[in-house]
Amino acid sequence: MALRFGVYFLSVIERINSSKDVKELNRDELELLCSELREFEINSIAKTGGHLASNLGTVELTVALHRVYDTSVDRLVFDVGHQCYTHKIITGRRDRFSTLRQYGGISGFPKPYEAVDDAFIAGHASNSVSVALGMARARTLNGDKYDVVAFIGDGALTGGLAYEGLCNAAASGEPMVIILNDNNMSISENVGGTSKLLQMMRMRPGYISFKKWYRGVMKQAPVLYKLSHKFKEWLKSWMLPDNIFSEMGLEYLGPIDGHDLYSLEKAIRLARDMQAPVLVHVLTRKGKGCDYAETHPDKYHGVGCFDASTGVLSSVETSFSDKLGDYLCRYAEDDRRIVAITAAMAGGTGIECFSVKYPDRFFDTGITEGNAVSMAAGMAKQGLIPVFAVYSSFLQRSYDMLIHDVSLQRLHVVFCVDRAGLVGSDGETHHGVFDVSFLSSVPGMTILAPASFQELGDMLGYALHDIDGPVAVRYPRGGEGAYTASLVAPESELRSGEDITLVSYGTLINQALEAADILASLGISAQVLKLGVLSPNDFSICLQSVRKTGRLLVAEEVCSSGCVGTKIVTEAALKGIELKAVRLLNLGDGIVCHGTVSELLHEKGLDAEAIAREARELCGSCVELR
Amino acid sequence: MALRFGVYFLSVIERINSSKDVKELNRDELELLCSELREFEINSIAKTGGHLASNLGTVELTVALHRVYDTSVDRLVFDVGHQCYTHKIITGRRDRFSTLRQYGGISGFPKPYEAVDDAFIAGHASNSVSVALGMARARTLNGDKYDVVAFIGDGALTGGLAYEGLCNAAASGEPMVIILNDNNMSISENVGGTSKLLQMMRMRPGYISFKKWYRGVMKQAPVLYKLSHKFKEWLKSWMLPDNIFSEMGLEYLGPIDGHDLYSLEKAIRLARDMQAPVLVHVLTRKGKGCDYAETHPDKYHGVGCFDASTGVLSSVETSFSDKLGDYLCRYAEDDRRIVAITAAMAGGTGIECFSVKYPDRFFDTGITEGNAVSMAAGMAKQGLIPVFAVYSSFLQRSYDMLIHDVSLQRLHVVFCVDRAGLVGSDGETHHGVFDVSFLSSVPGMTILAPASFQELGDMLGYALHDIDGPVAVRYPRGGEGAYTASLVAPESELRSGEDITLVSYGTLINQALEAADILASLGISAQVLKLGVLSPNDFSICLQSVRKTGRLLVAEEVCSSGCVGTKIVTEAALKGIELKAVRLLNLGDGIVCHGTVSELLHEKGLDAEAIAREARELCGSCVELR
Repeated sequence: MALRFGVYFLSVIERINSSKDVKELNRDELELLCSELREFEINSIAKTGGHLASNLGTVELTVALHRVYDTSVDRLVFDVGHQCYTHKIITGRRDRFSTLRQYGGISGFPKPYEAVDDAFIAGHASNSVSVALGMARARTLNGDKYDVVAFIGDGALTGGLAYEGLCNAAASGEPMVIILNDNNMSISENVGGTSKLLQMMRMRPGYISFKKWYRGVMKQAPVLYKLSHKFKEWLKSWMLPDNIFSEMGLEYLGPIDGHDLYSLEKAIRLARDMQAPVLVHVLTRKGKGCDYAETHPDKYHGVGCFDASTGVLSSVETSFSDKLGDYLCRYAEDDRRIVAITAAMAGGTGIECFSVKYPDRFFDTGITEGNAVSMAAGMAKQGLIPVFAVYSSFLQRSYDMLIHDVSLQRLHVVFCVDRAGLVGSDGETHHGVFDVSFLSSVPGMTILAPASFQELGDMLGYALHDIDGPVAVRYPRGGEGAYTASLVAPESELRSGEDITLVSYGTLINQALEAADILASLGISAQVLKLGVLSPNDFSICLQSVRKTGRLLVAEEVCSSGCVGTKIVTEAALKGIELKAVRLLNLGDGIVCHGTVSELLHEKGLDAEAIAREARELCGSCVELR
Repeated sequence: MALRFGVYFLSVIERINSSKDVKELNRDELELLCSELREFEINSIAKTGGHLASNLGTVELTVALHRVYDTSVDRLVFDVGHQCYTHKIITGRRDRFSTLRQYGGISGFPKPYEAVDDAFIAGHASNSVSVALGMARARTLNGDKYDVVAFIGDGALTGGLAYEGLCNAAASGEPMVIILNDNNMSISENVGGTSKLLQMMRMRPGYISFKKWYRGVMKQAPVLYKLSHKFKEWLKSWMLPDNIFSEMGLEYLGPIDGHDLYSLEKAIRLARDMQAPVLVHVLTRKGKGCDYAETHPDKYHGVGCFDASTGVLSSVETSFSDKLGDYLCRYAEDDRRIVAITAAMAGGTGIECFSVKYPDRFFDTGITEGNAVSMAAGMAKQGLIPVFAVYSSFLQRSYDMLIHDVSLQRLHVVFCVDRAGLVGSDGETHHGVFDVSFLSSVPGMTILAPASFQELGDMLGYALHDIDGPVAVRYPRGGEGAYTASLVAPESELRSGEDITLVSYGTLINQALEAADILASLGISAQVLKLGVLSPNDFSICLQSVRKTGRLLVAEEVCSSGCVGTKIVTEAALKGIELKAVRLLNLGDGIVCHGTVSELLHEKGLDAEAIAREARELCGSCVELR
């Protein structure tokens, strides 16, 4: 007992390895746990980087969820998932938390392969309600006994997919709980004010039992029910303001103070016991408990390393995103038709400066990539030049709109596709490795791939003013490499050679050039060609080179299906050009874990050494490869 | 005057060629116009086939829109667009209406290339509000003077894209009108009943001017405003039930009787003059004015030819969709884990029978392809085998969910991809020609392509029980051809030959077999290979054949980017197999107009004659092609 008290006094967090452990804590211990979790997260994220503000804001909420549910059995579905750190720490991953987002370490997002407590993958926004509904339906059909919870933020709620999920969940009647973590936006006018009354009233268990009894009795007397229902509705409309969720047919509880552990636990327990689709509206404060994060939640949303005591962030290199913002502002000065669109990523895509300089021509649509593309199409149809700056992996949401709304009418919309290629520590859900494939299939789409800052600027100008129809400019996360020139051409020779044709594009061209250096030291002369335009492109210079060398190696930071390599090989075959030896280096099926980009390139055989090795092999044995 | 009276008496419809002409009609003439439009549409659609019930239901609404707007200048954006017939007839396309949906004739959907009055392309659901918002913003930024209207049905409103558009439109404050054509579903509990009061009150012009005046005055006195606002809100909540649209921040007018021309015109004019984002809620009756269509609106939604007087439909051949429903029901009998999902296409995809037989295991999600896939992923994660039956071109909406929610976790979800390949008269927005490309890029996706009914059944069984991870079974609109066998294998030889390798899949294999007959008559021996699995496939039998023949022709009903032909050619190059001559026959960039499938195959060089011609050419001159 004394020992136990001693352990408790030293640290509660160290005793917690599951939902079950959380349930055993008393009120004082719980409060201590929350403050220990916060301290642990701040100190740990300061060293690894990661999502700070959103996790600090949801400490009590996550602890409360583990008080009510057992996540090893119940299914807790995170939306986006960057708010899962507290959950990970609670469910046995505290010791590995120092490896967060690092190669071989734990992911910054929920991963079922890490722990049974991670019910589902997360990364993209707004899917959690649909996924949870699917789980709830499976549970009910299979006659299983567990609870299903979706944990969604107010930002993700702006996405249409969430609306689809909520409407379907409401209509389903399936017992499930949707936790709305509202840390910013006023979703509904009813937040605050008179709704305190509502909250208290609905929270009273008596209200729920009364409701059940009332429904039961009234089923026997339809006319009385109808009349009393009308009266009740009138009474309700007078006393309890409706909101969008109750309009949809969801039971609504809230708003709840997201830092009041006791109220949270009570509300979540009540929601669970209602055995219906219930939305629990929780108000949280991003960065809670950490001065600098609370004051600047956006700055401390996703961060690199920082000083835990002062919050001073480690300096970051200039990125393609930064340069995009600069260039776009410059072009917009001379051309009033240019407007900028973001789907809640003004900071990440670097176009915040545009919003300051041209507020009337800047449109933040919320997390609505589909709507952003359709809206851009409408703008282009009526004479504007819309520029949609968006992460590659999030543009996947707009695939149909790209084809249907933009391409079929050959509208001139410019897509600035940020985070193209490997993104590093965010991992598999965020790598931009499908865009070359899916954008190539969009009729009439031009795809440009700048490899340096200057090329980004020049290609953006080319995209804005010289190209008709849809055009994508794709560039990576982070900064430029050794190649800093600018060659705006479908194909450019960066290095002449006789023995093998090395083709690449984007910043991976740096690895290709390095590989050529290695090969030169081995006496192999590689011609290095950089692609500026990925589609359309007849690859005439590549083919001319291949006619000479007979050997082709194409290195790409994308999935294999629909990669540029297959297009060059096909072009060669159609033109009857003999390829003595071919190697297509890429990311295979496109699933790549997290780590630094150079670690991942190494793993996938796309660093300079691997490219050189493959090229040498190709030159060594030119017949019967693979 | 007498002559004019004479013309009027004979036919109003013949005098109408623009919005302007509609504006010149008096009340009697307008009523006559509506009934003439109905008669004209019934008689015309009976001969061509097309969308009957939805167009009959929107005659007055469309006429009212042309009374208020000039669609040659104002922008009327249809959602889905199958309800645009009245608009087409009014705007100069009456004479060509007998060519509806036929090759070379006018389209059944809005097409800007047909007339300036068609503001935007349509076909897929839920995009109209976003597009219209883009147009309204362009109008305002450019300082132009025209009105923008979105015309959306209650079905399309279930899509999250519409929600994204509505939220953005509401927040924008842009003057624009959204016409909600509500012909079935009760969007809100407020439809009918007490809302008559609301409608009348809001419709009174005095209410609008009072609102303007009130806001102006109250701006000067914030405290008074706050107090009076609270009182007003209370009063409103007592008198005027809120609904989801006003929650979003849209001005709301309605519900309006969609067959009362006078009320419609008045409401639309009022909405236009409010100079804000306004939603006009219109109640219409599908099939209005035509007994059989009014009684069975679903049956007469999209129809082939029928008898105009009795409504008796021409008989239709058994389709792959019909067979899918049968097979699925059969498999579901033995395996309780199988559940069926549709996104509002139970009839079209043939799984209505499943909904009758297994109502508890059948889920219609509304027009929410994204949500359907995410929900299916949740179901699969918890042990069900979800089958999502969906049209190929609509599955484009789910591209991100396929990757993020299904593929990354290798979940076993079965996609029955209906309308794969050319669909015929619905045209460019509906052809299923991108699925092979985008599904191939989804990690771990297996793609099966049955070529006969029996193969559909067998491959469905294979997909349900023998494959792990995501799997798509793609099959065309309509019925099977001469090939009725069943060969469930990655590659199958249908005909042996020595001179050339002909590869195809799906029902296009019939054209390849016919082509082989033609070639045989010319003394050329073609080996015909049918692909049953499009991905993953190492194409070993194809390559073996090519080693022998040296010549490869791949015929596919899909877009060129990411087609199977490029995969075979790439595989050959990687294996160092020499291709003396290659031809990849496909649909190029994938944009194909409307007409019968055989007309379209002929145009695109994919009928038996064209395949034979290309093959012969390939055999004739084996070097230096194209």
